[in-house]
Amino acid sequence: MKKITIIKVGGAVVEDSAQLNKLLDDFSHIQGAKILVHGGGRTATKIAERLNIETKMVGGRRITDKNMLEIVTMVYGGLVNKNIVARLQSRSLNAIGLTGADGNVLLSHKREVKDVDYGYVGDIDKGNLPVLSTLINAGLIPVIAPLTHDGKGNLLNTNADTIAAEIAKTMATAFDVTLIYAFEKPGVMENPDDDKSVIPLITAESYIKLKERNIVSGGMIPKIDNAFNAIKVGVKEVVITKADSIDGTKGTKIVQ
Amino acid sequence: MKKITIIKVGGAVVEDSAQLNKLLDDFSHIQGAKILVHGGGRTATKIAERLNIETKMVGGRRITDKNMLEIVTMVYGGLVNKNIVARLQSRSLNAIGLTGADGNVLLSHKREVKDVDYGYVGDIDKGNLPVLSTLINAGLIPVIAPLTHDGKGNLLNTNADTIAAEIAKTMATAFDVTLIYAFEKPGVMENPDDDKSVIPLITAESYIKLKERNIVSGGMIPKIDNAFNAIKVGVKEVVITKADSIDGTKGTKIVQ
Repeated sequence: MKKITIIKVGGAVVEDSAQLNKLLDDFSHIQGAKILVHGGGRTATKIAERLNIETKMVGGRRITDKNMLEIVTMVYGGLVNKNIVARLQSRSLNAIGLTGADGNVLLSHKREVKDVDYGYVGDIDKGNLPVLSTLINAGLIPVIAPLTHDGKGNLLNTNADTIAAEIAKTMATAFDVTLIYAFEKPGVMENPDDDKSVIPLITAESYIKLKERNIVSGGMIPKIDNAFNAIKVGVKEVVITKADSIDGTKGTKIVQ
Repeated sequence: MKKITIIKVGGAVVEDSAQLNKLLDDFSHIQGAKILVHGGGRTATKIAERLNIETKMVGGRRITDKNMLEIVTMVYGGLVNKNIVARLQSRSLNAIGLTGADGNVLLSHKREVKDVDYGYVGDIDKGNLPVLSTLINAGLIPVIAPLTHDGKGNLLNTNADTIAAEIAKTMATAFDVTLIYAFEKPGVMENPDDDKSVIPLITAESYIKLKERNIVSGGMIPKIDNAFNAIKVGVKEVVITKADSIDGTKGTKIVQ
């Protein structure tokens, strides 16, 4: 099978011009087919503040009312996405920016209201392998913003980690997929204060123990859960690593 | 040759939800390959105002400094483009939103400073027929925002009428192109106060006379000049018509 690398990069890196340029340099050196998925929450919060719109978060997730949906559509789909695309073009990569609505690449539904009403937030139903394959086979490099659509004309704010995992699962039926989560830490660590304590490998079995020992907690749990969900349906490996080390040799590797 | 219809729709229609829905309904009924090019200047001005950024226009053209470039990137590439794409998806059209940076579809250079420094404004050098053809042949419908890029990592604000003409010229080497400018008037009119005075046909010869008689003036001149430039290099016909009548039977037809 043809190999594809999917990199997810968060808002903190995307917003720092020097860090972003380093990441895009490294991304341009990855061989073979590739996809970049990005966040942008910090910029959305800043623009919301300038527009006098309050940012409400519950458990690290943004509450997305009509006004906030406008902001994330502008920031994720426009400002952040198009600047990354333009910078990749300057590196001779033929990037193409997409939300889930573009080419219908990610169809979702508005999250059901249980304890919390997250508003215009999408839970993904289906990725679009034919369209993504067409783009990739034409030498294009999809750059995906954290927005999806419901097929009824509504855009929906969608977590970038989840998008990366869903794109990985979608591609896994036709490609040999490596999914890399690039973030501010060097990987999953035994001791959060010691950058040298990176756990090189997590299996389904060792993950249970890491949770029991409370080494993995907080925001790391949905990241690793996403990783295992992706692996269960055919993604070859998931790597959690620092944004300046995306060549696949560092960080924490997650396998079956 | 395969037929393609390129529709350009301005900010006034794009901003009115009912008018936009009518236009998108009509657009969805156009047979064969198609491309939609949109504006969004009025929304950009509104968002700029809310962010306390002054909008400066010279001769109807926006001066685009760094701050204004951020705004048009958010509004044209994000808010307006993605909402149109989501609405087309709800009509079962597989729309894909693009700026000129996406897939390198429109390469431009920053406009040289002569009398006026327009700032980050692009003059187009080259459209990308292979990428646009790949998308169209895959059944995708490009929706193009008025932004281009310079290949050096910079996005550039670019007039939507000009983009529509350049896209038409690019496609004309492989398609039988009809370019339709949809705007608020029913066409080019003998008497601006009489909607029934639409001039059904303008040729290069009759255009000279219309300019001499001052029937064509102001913002209509660059529109028609763009049209003739497109026709000179192979575009079959250009139609200037009201946004609620884009089926090609009404308005002013411009031919060689």
